[in-house]
Amino acid sequence: MRVAVLGGDGFCGWPASLHLSDLGHTIAIVDNLSRRQIDKELGAESLTPIATMGERLAAWQETSGKSIEFHNLDIAQDYAELAEFISTFRPDAVVHFAEQRAAPYSMKNHATKRYTVDNNVRATHNLLVAIVESGLDVHVVHLGTMGVYGYGTAGMKIPEGYLDVQVASESSEPLSQQILYPTNPGSVYHMTKVLDQHLFAYYAKNDELRITDLHQGIIWGTNTPQTLRSERLINRFDYDGDYGTVLNRFLMQAAVGYPLTVHGTGGQTRAFIHIRDMVTCIQLALENPPAKGERVKIYNQMTETHRVRDLAELVARLSGAQVAYVPNPRKESAENELYVSNDTFLDLGLHPTRLEEGLLQEVEDVARKYAHRADRSKIPARSLWTSAQAAGVPDSEK
Amino acid sequence: MRVAVLGGDGFCGWPASLHLSDLGHTIAIVDNLSRRQIDKELGAESLTPIATMGERLAAWQETSGKSIEFHNLDIAQDYAELAEFISTFRPDAVVHFAEQRAAPYSMKNHATKRYTVDNNVRATHNLLVAIVESGLDVHVVHLGTMGVYGYGTAGMKIPEGYLDVQVASESSEPLSQQILYPTNPGSVYHMTKVLDQHLFAYYAKNDELRITDLHQGIIWGTNTPQTLRSERLINRFDYDGDYGTVLNRFLMQAAVGYPLTVHGTGGQTRAFIHIRDMVTCIQLALENPPAKGERVKIYNQMTETHRVRDLAELVARLSGAQVAYVPNPRKESAENELYVSNDTFLDLGLHPTRLEEGLLQEVEDVARKYAHRADRSKIPARSLWTSAQAAGVPDSEK
Repeated sequence: MRVAVLGGDGFCGWPASLHLSDLGHTIAIVDNLSRRQIDKELGAESLTPIATMGERLAAWQETSGKSIEFHNLDIAQDYAELAEFISTFRPDAVVHFAEQRAAPYSMKNHATKRYTVDNNVRATHNLLVAIVESGLDVHVVHLGTMGVYGYGTAGMKIPEGYLDVQVASESSEPLSQQILYPTNPGSVYHMTKVLDQHLFAYYAKNDELRITDLHQGIIWGTNTPQTLRSERLINRFDYDGDYGTVLNRFLMQAAVGYPLTVHGTGGQTRAFIHIRDMVTCIQLALENPPAKGERVKIYNQMTETHRVRDLAELVARLSGAQVAYVPNPRKESAENELYVSNDTFLDLGLHPTRLEEGLLQEVEDVARKYAHRADRSKIPARSLWTSAQAAGVPDSEK
Repeated sequence: MRVAVLGGDGFCGWPASLHLSDLGHTIAIVDNLSRRQIDKELGAESLTPIATMGERLAAWQETSGKSIEFHNLDIAQDYAELAEFISTFRPDAVVHFAEQRAAPYSMKNHATKRYTVDNNVRATHNLLVAIVESGLDVHVVHLGTMGVYGYGTAGMKIPEGYLDVQVASESSEPLSQQILYPTNPGSVYHMTKVLDQHLFAYYAKNDELRITDLHQGIIWGTNTPQTLRSERLINRFDYDGDYGTVLNRFLMQAAVGYPLTVHGTGGQTRAFIHIRDMVTCIQLALENPPAKGERVKIYNQMTETHRVRDLAELVARLSGAQVAYVPNPRKESAENELYVSNDTFLDLGLHPTRLEEGLLQEVEDVARKYAHRADRSKIPARSLWTSAQAAGVPDSEK
C-alpha cells in the first residue's frame, strides 16, 4: 500500500511510519517539523535525544534496508504543494497526525489558542479538499481523541463514535436514530478534534471520501520494536508541562526525585494505550477501510482506564517516589468514572500491552537512562484554563 | 448600548446597523469590505446601486443626525487590530455577521471552499479569543443558519437548537438528555456554521461568554424603513447564481422576462424571513441576552416555510413570468417537509411580515425599478456540489 503519513516526525507519526514501512508499505512522510520548532519556543526538549529527520531516515535505511520519502511542507499553509504531493505520490491511504496535539499548549494564551484552531482546522480541511480535487480514492485515517466525548457520561459506556437515541415524535412512536456522539471537549485542542469530526462527516457525505477517525486515549510508552533498532531512531519522550502526558510526567518526576504532582484529587479517570498498540491500531485501521459512500468509521483506540491518583501510586510504588497533590489548573470535574467500548480493535486482533506489565521497563529503559538530560524547571503545568483559576493556583504551578 | 456590528457593510449587517443606530444605540461597524471584493471577483454587482461606505455613513448622518463609526479591518486576519478595537470601543454586545455566506460560492472550487472555512472559522474564533482576552463582559449575537439542521427531519418539528433525547443506560431506566441538535449541513458554507456552534458551546462553557446563535432562514426583501430614507442608504439586492437567494433570483428573472429556473422538482421546502423582521430579531436578541455561565441561547429566526416551486408559481402569478424546471446542481433531497419551532421570537413580540403581503411591492419597487441594471448572464447557478453532478447538468446551467 502507498501510505502518506502527515505529521510523520511527531511522537505518534514517527513510530507509525516505521511500523508501516517495516510491514512493506511504501511510506512518504509529510511534516513541517513544527513540533521541533515548538520545543525551541518553549525552551523544552525531548528527554530522549531526537536525531534530525535526515539522520532518522538514514538510520532506518541502514537497519531495515527500506527507504522513506520525506517532504518538508506545511499542509495548513501550503495548499498548492499539498495538492501537488497528493496527485504525484498517489497514496492509497493518508494517515493524518499533522495537528497541534497538546491541551495545555492550546490553553497557554491567545496566540496558542488561535494557532491550534487555525492550524488544525486548516490542515484537516486542506487535506480533504486536496483529495477531492485529485479525484483519487484515498482512505483517510485520522488521529482523533477520546477527549471529544467529554468525561461526564453518567455511568454510561461510551460507544464507538455513534450513539443510539430515541427522539419523541409528533406521532405516538418515538423515533430511533443513531447520531454522532454529542461532544463535550475540555480544551481548545480537544475542541479542534470536534471540528474535525464535522469536517469528516460532511466530506464523507458530500464527496463520498472514505474516512476512519480514531478516538485515541492517552499514549504511554516511548518506543516500538522499530524505534529500538538504533538510538538515532529513538522516539520522543516529552515530560514538560505542555506536551508531557500525565504518565511521562510521573515517570520523569520519579526518575529525578521530584514528587509526583497530581492535579486536584487525582480522581480524573482517563483512557490509555501503549504506543506499540497505537501503531498496530493504525495498521488495522488501514487494513479495514470503510466502503465508498459509507459514513465515517469511528473506533475507540484505547485499552485500559485508570484514575490519575492510582497511576501516581503505581509509579511511586515502582520507583519509591512521593506523591504531591496540587491545585488543578484545568477546568474539569474532580472525579469521574469512564467506561469505554473498544470492541472493534479487539475483534480485529489487537492484544493490548498492559500498563502493569510495561511500566517498570519504561522507568528503567527511558526515564532513568536519560534522566541526566532532564530540566526540572520544565515539569510543572503552567497553562491555566480560565482567568478565574489564576487565583487558586500557587505561583510555582502556574 | 454600545454595539459593534462585524460585517456591517453586508446585506444583513448594513440594515441591522441602521436599525440599531435608529433605536439610539452607539454603533461601530467593522468590515473588510470583502463582499464588494467578491462582486469584483465574480464580475457581478448588486441590482440596487450600493454607495461607498463613506457615502452611506454620510447619508445616515444627514437623514438621522446620528453617526456610526467605521473600522476597515479583517477580523479573520488582523487579530491584534480586532483585540485593540474590542478593548478600545468596549462594546456591550457584538453582532457577528462577518462570514462568507453563500452556499454556491462555497462550493465553486478548492479556493472558495478553503476561503469559506478559513475565513469563517478564524473570524469567529478570533472574536471569541479577543473577548476572553479583553476581560470584558460582551454579549455575542451570531447569525447562524437553519441549514445546520439539515432537512431530513422525518416529520419532526425542528426545535430551537437543542433536542430532547432518551439514551439507553446500563441500569433499567433510559437517561433523558438535552443535546445540541445533530447537524446535517448541505454545503461547505453551512458546515462552517456547524463549526461555529461548537466554538460557541466551548467558549460559553469554559470562559462563560454570553452567546446567542440565530439560526436564520432565507432572507427575502431588500429594504428596511431606514435604508429607504435615501438612495445612498439602499441595501444590496443580489441576483447572481452565487449570492442571489432563491426569491431574489425569481424576482429578477421575472423582471427581465427570463423564465423562473427551479432546480429539480422544486419540492425543496425552505424557511424564510423578511429583512425587516431580521433586524427586529437582532434587536430582540440583544435585549434578551443569556446570563453569564448559561449555555448558548439558540433561536430559530424564520417566520414561514414554502416549497420552492410554490414560490416560483407565486412570483409567476404576480409577474406573468414562465417557470422552467432544470437539473439540480446541489446534492440534496428532491422533496422535503419542514416544520420549525420559532416560538421564542413570537413570544418576544415579533409580528412577521408575510410573503404574500410584501412580495408584490418587492417586484415593483426593486426588481422592476432597477431591472435596467441587470446582467442576465449572471443569473444561472454555476457551482456543482460534486464532480459526479457535472454529467447531469446542461452546460448552460453549470
